[in-house]
Amino acid sequence: MVATSPGYSITLRVGTEVGQASTSDLVAAAAATGASVTALDVVESTPHSVIIDVSADTRDVAHADEVSDALSALSGVEVHKVSDRTFLLHLGGKLESTPKVPLRNRDDLSRAYTPGVARVCKAIAENKEDARRLTIKRNTVAVVTDGTAVLGLGDIGPEAAMPVMEGKAVLFKQFADVDAWPVALDTKDTEEIISICKAIAPAYGGINLEDIAAPRCFEIEARLREELDIPVFHDDQHGTGVVTLAALKNALKVVDKKLEDLRIVVSGVGAAGNAIIRLLQVAGATNIIACGRDGAIGPDSTVDTDHKKWLQANTNPEGFSGTLKEAVVGADAFIGVSAPNVLDGDDIAAMNKDALVFAMANPDPEVDPAEALKQAAVVATGRSDYPNQINNVLAFPGIFRGLLDAEARDIDENIMVAAADAIASCIPEDELHPGYVIPSVFDPEVAKKVAEAVAQVSS
Amino acid sequence: MVATSPGYSITLRVGTEVGQASTSDLVAAAAATGASVTALDVVESTPHSVIIDVSADTRDVAHADEVSDALSALSGVEVHKVSDRTFLLHLGGKLESTPKVPLRNRDDLSRAYTPGVARVCKAIAENKEDARRLTIKRNTVAVVTDGTAVLGLGDIGPEAAMPVMEGKAVLFKQFADVDAWPVALDTKDTEEIISICKAIAPAYGGINLEDIAAPRCFEIEARLREELDIPVFHDDQHGTGVVTLAALKNALKVVDKKLEDLRIVVSGVGAAGNAIIRLLQVAGATNIIACGRDGAIGPDSTVDTDHKKWLQANTNPEGFSGTLKEAVVGADAFIGVSAPNVLDGDDIAAMNKDALVFAMANPDPEVDPAEALKQAAVVATGRSDYPNQINNVLAFPGIFRGLLDAEARDIDENIMVAAADAIASCIPEDELHPGYVIPSVFDPEVAKKVAEAVAQVSS
Repeated sequence: MVATSPGYSITLRVGTEVGQASTSDLVAAAAATGASVTALDVVESTPHSVIIDVSADTRDVAHADEVSDALSALSGVEVHKVSDRTFLLHLGGKLESTPKVPLRNRDDLSRAYTPGVARVCKAIAENKEDARRLTIKRNTVAVVTDGTAVLGLGDIGPEAAMPVMEGKAVLFKQFADVDAWPVALDTKDTEEIISICKAIAPAYGGINLEDIAAPRCFEIEARLREELDIPVFHDDQHGTGVVTLAALKNALKVVDKKLEDLRIVVSGVGAAGNAIIRLLQVAGATNIIACGRDGAIGPDSTVDTDHKKWLQANTNPEGFSGTLKEAVVGADAFIGVSAPNVLDGDDIAAMNKDALVFAMANPDPEVDPAEALKQAAVVATGRSDYPNQINNVLAFPGIFRGLLDAEARDIDENIMVAAADAIASCIPEDELHPGYVIPSVFDPEVAKKVAEAVAQVSS
Repeated sequence: MVATSPGYSITLRVGTEVGQASTSDLVAAAAATGASVTALDVVESTPHSVIIDVSADTRDVAHADEVSDALSALSGVEVHKVSDRTFLLHLGGKLESTPKVPLRNRDDLSRAYTPGVARVCKAIAENKEDARRLTIKRNTVAVVTDGTAVLGLGDIGPEAAMPVMEGKAVLFKQFADVDAWPVALDTKDTEEIISICKAIAPAYGGINLEDIAAPRCFEIEARLREELDIPVFHDDQHGTGVVTLAALKNALKVVDKKLEDLRIVVSGVGAAGNAIIRLLQVAGATNIIACGRDGAIGPDSTVDTDHKKWLQANTNPEGFSGTLKEAVVGADAFIGVSAPNVLDGDDIAAMNKDALVFAMANPDPEVDPAEALKQAAVVATGRSDYPNQINNVLAFPGIFRGLLDAEARDIDENIMVAAADAIASCIPEDELHPGYVIPSVFDPEVAKKVAEAVAQVSS
C-alpha cells in the first residue's frame, strides 16, 4: 500500500448539522479510508450547523475522492468543496521578479533608470567583464529545459515542465541565495537549443540544464561548455553524480572499504548513469560495469551512441558479459538509476559481503528497500520515506553559489568531486552509520560547505 | 550649462585636519564648481582630524573629478575615495528572482516540488491553457532586446543593455506588479531573434520588445504578433505612440482643436515615428506629413524600406514636398522623435496659431523648449526638467497589467488608443493647462486606469 503524502493533501469544506455527525466522526470516517487528517478548522458555526475545513493527506486523486465520498455518506454531513492544496500552492506560479532597488521618487529613477543608467551601460560596453559586477549576471542562473524528460513523466512539453523549473528556482534561492530563472524552450532541436543558450547567456552567470532527454543532453552540455564563458551544469547528470559520490564515500567509511577496490555495477546508461560513472572514475573507481536494458556493456556489445562507445572503451575492465542479475553477483556496490524492481532480495544476497545498494529509480526503486536492507550493509534511495535519500538539492544550490562567487567560467569533474567531499563532510565521522550516510536536504550547513569548497577549487 | 543630476551623484570620503578647512569651506568649494551638495555625514572624529562623507550631484564624470580636485586643493583636506552612487546602486544587478511559496519543511517541499508538482505538470500537459493559471506565465513578461538601439547610445551589445532592461523590469513591478525578466540576446539576426522569442514564449504571458534597431524591429514585431498567442509590444514604438497620443488629446482640449482637423508634422521615421503616425491615424488624424533626414516623404520621394513605402502611401495627402523647416510652416502640431536642434524659435513662430510642439529627442530636443514656449501654446519633451514629460513608463506597466489580467492573446491599435485615453483621463479637465497635459510618472492612478481600460477592450 502506497503511503499518504502531503503532495496529495486536500482540504474538504464540510457542512454538518448540529446533533448529527461529530468532528470525531469526520476524523474516523477519513481515517477509515487510510487518509491522515492533519487539521480541522471551524469556518462558521450557527445554532443549527457548523462548517469545518478538514485537511488530510491522501495517496492519490482517487483516494481524495474516496475521502470525500466517505464524509458525504455520514448522516447530516455535506461536502461543499474539495480543494487540492498542491494546486492552490501553484496558482499564479511560484516565482516573482523583485526589484532590489527602491524607486520612490525622481532621484531614485534617475539613478536606477535614465539618465544615470546610461553611464553604467557605457562602462559595460567598454569592458564586458563589468557585467559580472553591475548586472544580475553576478548572481543569476538560467534553468534551461526542453521539457522532454521531466521527473518520471517523460516528454510533457515546455509549458508542463514549468512547475518543476519554477520549483528548482525556488530551491536555488532558498538554499543558496542564487537567483534562478526558468527558460522552458519550445523546441527539441539540439542545434537550436545550443544557439538559444548561447544567445541568452549575457544575462546569466551560469546555466543549469534540466530534464533534457539523453542523448541530446550530452551534446548540448559538451558544446555549451566549449563555447560559453560561464559554467554549464546538467543537474540530471552531475547533480545526481555528486550526491551519489558523496553518499558512497560515507558508506565506504561505514563498511571500511576503499573506492579503488570496489567492484561497482551501475544500472542505467542514460544521463545520470553516464555522469555517475565518469565522476566515480575521476574519484578513483577502477572497476565499474555499466548495465543497460540488454545487460552489461562489454567488448562484444553492440553500441549505437557516442556515450555508449565511451562506456565500452572505459568500463568493464574484466570484460564481463551477462545480465544485470548476473553482474551483481559478488559486486561490492549496486547503483541504480534505471527502472523499478529489476532486482530482488536474492540478488542483493548474492553480492559481496557488506554490499552497498543505491536504488534510486523514482518513485519505485530498482529493488524493494525493505528487502535490500535485510541483505546489504547500506541502502540508499531517491525517496524521502526511507533513510539515506539521494537528492540533488544537496548539490546544485551550493555548487552554483560557489561558481558565482568565484566568477567561474567553467566547471569540471574536479570541482564536482570537491562538492561531493563537502557534502560527505557534513556528517561527522562519529555520527556515520548505515542509516545516515548523507545529510538531510534541510541541513543548512550543506550548501555553505559546498559553496566554499567549489569556490576554492574554481578560483 | 547642463544642470547637475542625481544620475551623476557622487560621495567623496574626505579627511580634514582640525583647525584647517571647515565643513562650510567644503560645501563652498564644491558649490564653486557648480555641484549641488546634498549631504554631509561625519564618519569618524578624533581630536586631530575628522572624516566626512560629502555627497553631491554633479553634471558628469569630468565635473565629479573637478569637485574632487577642488576639495583636495583646500588646505589640510585629503580626498580618500570618490564613490559614484549610481554605480553603487547597480552593483550586483537591480533584480532578483524571489519565491512566492515557503519551503520550510518536508511538507512544503512535497507540495511545491516533488512529488506533488508532478500532478500540476500533468494537468498542464493535458490542457496547455492551464499554464496561464498554474505557472508564472500568469503574470510574467519577457523584456527582449538585442542591444542595438539602447537609449541614445546605439548598438552597445546585450551585456551593456542589461542595466536598462533590468531597470525596465523594476518599473514593471513597481508600477503595475507585473513580473518582468530581461532577455538580452547575443544575436542581431532577425530570424534568430524571432525563433528565440517563439522558443522561450511558454514561460511568458507577453513580450515587450525593447531597444531593437529599426527596421529589424518592425519585422520581428509583425512576425511574432502573427505567430505567437501572447501579446507582443515594442515599447520604443507603441509605448511612445500611446503616451504621445495621450498628451496630444489633452493638448487639443487646451487649445480647443480637433485631431481630425490638424495638420501634423512628424520628424523621425524610425521605430517611434512610424508607430506614432499609425496610432494617430487610428485615433482620427487625417493630415500627417512624415519627415526623414531628406525632408518630407511624398509622392516623389525615393523610399527604400517597406515602412517608408507605407508612409508614402498613407501620409501626406496634399503631396507636400520640401524640408522639415518648410513643412512646419502653418502646421498645427510638430511631433519630433529625431535629432537635437533641427528647428529654432522662428520655425515655431511660423506654425499655425496655438501650435503644439512635442520635441522628444533625448537628451536634447528638436527645438530649445524655452524658445518653443515663447511661440507655441503647448510644449512637451522627453525630459524631466521641463513640464509635460512624454515618458513611456506612463504606458507599458498598465498596458501589460491589463493584458495579463485579460489573458490577452494579442494587442492592436484599438487597445493602444484605449490606453492613451486612460492616461489622458488621469488629469481632470478643469486642471488641464498648457504646462500640464500629461500626468506625472509617479501618479499612482495612471497604471490602474490604463490596466482597467486595456483589460476591458481586450476581453
